[in-house]
Amino acid sequence: MSQSQELPVPPPDALVFSREIRIEWGDCDPAAIVFYPRYFAFFDANTAYLFEAAGMPKAEVVKTYNIVGVPLVDVGAKFFMPSKFGDRVAVESYVSEWRRSSFTVTHRLLRGGKLAIQAHETRVWAGKDPENPGGIKTKPIPPEVIARFTKS
Amino acid sequence: MSQSQELPVPPPDALVFSREIRIEWGDCDPAAIVFYPRYFAFFDANTAYLFEAAGMPKAEVVKTYNIVGVPLVDVGAKFFMPSKFGDRVAVESYVSEWRRSSFTVTHRLLRGGKLAIQAHETRVWAGKDPENPGGIKTKPIPPEVIARFTKS
Amino acid sequence: MSQSQELPVPPPDALVFSREIRIEWGDCDPAAIVFYPRYFAFFDANTAYLFEAAGMPKAEVVKTYNIVGVPLVDVGAKFFMPSKFGDRVAVESYVSEWRRSSFTVTHRLLRGGKLAIQAHETRVWAGKDPENPGGIKTKPIPPEVIARFTKS
Amino acid sequence: MSQSQELPVPPPDALVFSREIRIEWGDCDPAAIVFYPRYFAFFDANTAYLFEAAGMPKAEVVKTYNIVGVPLVDVGAKFFMPSKFGDRVAVESYVSEWRRSSFTVTHRLLRGGKLAIQAHETRVWAGKDPENPGGIKTKPIPPEVIARFTKS
Repeated sequence: MSQSQELPVPPPDALVFSREIRIEWGDCDPAAIVFYPRYFAFFDANTAYLFEAAGMPKAEVVKTYNIVGVPLVDVGAKFFMPSKFGDRVAVESYVSEWRRSSFTVTHRLLRGGKLAIQAHETRVWAGKDPENPGGIKTKPIPPEVIARFTKS
Repeated sequence: MSQSQELPVPPPDALVFSREIRIEWGDCDPAAIVFYPRYFAFFDANTAYLFEAAGMPKAEVVKTYNIVGVPLVDVGAKFFMPSKFGDRVAVESYVSEWRRSSFTVTHRLLRGGKLAIQAHETRVWAGKDPENPGGIKTKPIPPEVIARFTKS
Repeated sequence: MSQSQELPVPPPDALVFSREIRIEWGDCDPAAIVFYPRYFAFFDANTAYLFEAAGMPKAEVVKTYNIVGVPLVDVGAKFFMPSKFGDRVAVESYVSEWRRSSFTVTHRLLRGGKLAIQAHETRVWAGKDPENPGGIKTKPIPPEVIARFTKS
Repeated sequence: MSQSQELPVPPPDALVFSREIRIEWGDCDPAAIVFYPRYFAFFDANTAYLFEAAGMPKAEVVKTYNIVGVPLVDVGAKFFMPSKFGDRVAVESYVSEWRRSSFTVTHRLLRGGKLAIQAHETRVWAGKDPENPGGIKTKPIPPEVIARFTKS
């Protein structure tokens, strides 16, 4: 709770999406701090905004690459400071790792310049499984997709 | 806040769906009472459960009657008592009025047998508009649908 | 659904708070439109922002006027158009009526300049009830509070 | 997505709280599957129910042991199968590890007897920090608390 935190640092060429969020009354619980599932709603939205910032809005990606989406397979978060009604926090997001058919988005929530939460979402690039109707199957992520998330 | 309330009474032959809900920590706000949008999530779910209790689960209704759904056009609620974390409340729902192509669901939320909230949702029976691609058009509600919500 | 709507017009001297909201993935349901309780979260937050814009943030008001808050007693909404993931909507809010110890906030949600939702929240000015420990009692709204919501 | 999963097994003497949840329309997103932050609302509530099942409702614990609560410091989840509107899922929760002043709750969400999600929450036993007004400080967890979560 009080230990100092090493901030995860985005790779220098990573596209980073950042936005400010005001913490609202309805985001908070009877302890007057953010009810933690709300943070994941912030992070999920930030992943969509990051794709948009990369010129790849979710709806287009699905059509262009014939995938069903980028379903979540793993999520985690470490909480260092709570936030409360009225606080202004920054949520910064970037892809911290690309693998053959999955990738990890790292989210940092900062308050007053200090790291309040560090989180990650691992998602897969998933298309329909041709051998299993109704099922999905991971597909290799096209290199031009990855390139979009890199600052030139 | 303190005036006594006349309870709306369901018609004697109306099918009534009732369930108990425990108020959870995440349903509540920093005033330690339920954040009011959560009540509408309870009511919306109760409408689905009421249809299911009538033998008409939403997914089937849409197929059987070739409609796009029963979109909400009007909602309202009066709040007489707040509820808090850990409370057990009952939510009772029934169709209080059928019209040609719309109907009203009345919801009562009771705590300790007292009326805490009275609400209504008015929804329309809506199909695709044959003259306006992408648009919707109200359709007459089939009499056999209405019959299902009446206790025989 | 298709009838043209008369827009409610704020009194010319009313303080109006307006903000743009992006509709997020998590705001929407399987019909790919906003799950309606989320709209009330938008409206509740807008009431808080309106108070802030009037120079009366909620936390200060409670202390300054020795009230427990402004609990909701009545809410209603009419829905004219749905909104979907990615939409940009404007939410405009103002106090449409002041009464002795209660007031009504009118909210309009606009998409593409058209009225998508019209809603209201009626709230009471409530202090502790000196004759009923744990209870609350409405109090007259101070004239200087009302004055803050009027553009000079 | 398709690999078989080893189910985490609760220690034989651990108190396990389990409940069935119906997936509601409002829990789901435009992909017609549960919007993942909702799962954390389920898990957070299950932790409260587990404490209640141990005879230690949250409100009492705070008073009895003079703590401010059991704030979350780390959460994680692995997702193996999505769930959709109408599904019945079981959420099972137990304390999988007790440490000096922190503990980990493991949650398993099962659908049709198969593991759909495995998650954990690590929480600390936190009191007010006597040397830092407004701050909190971890405290040792009393042995009698731990004993309550063990089946005799």
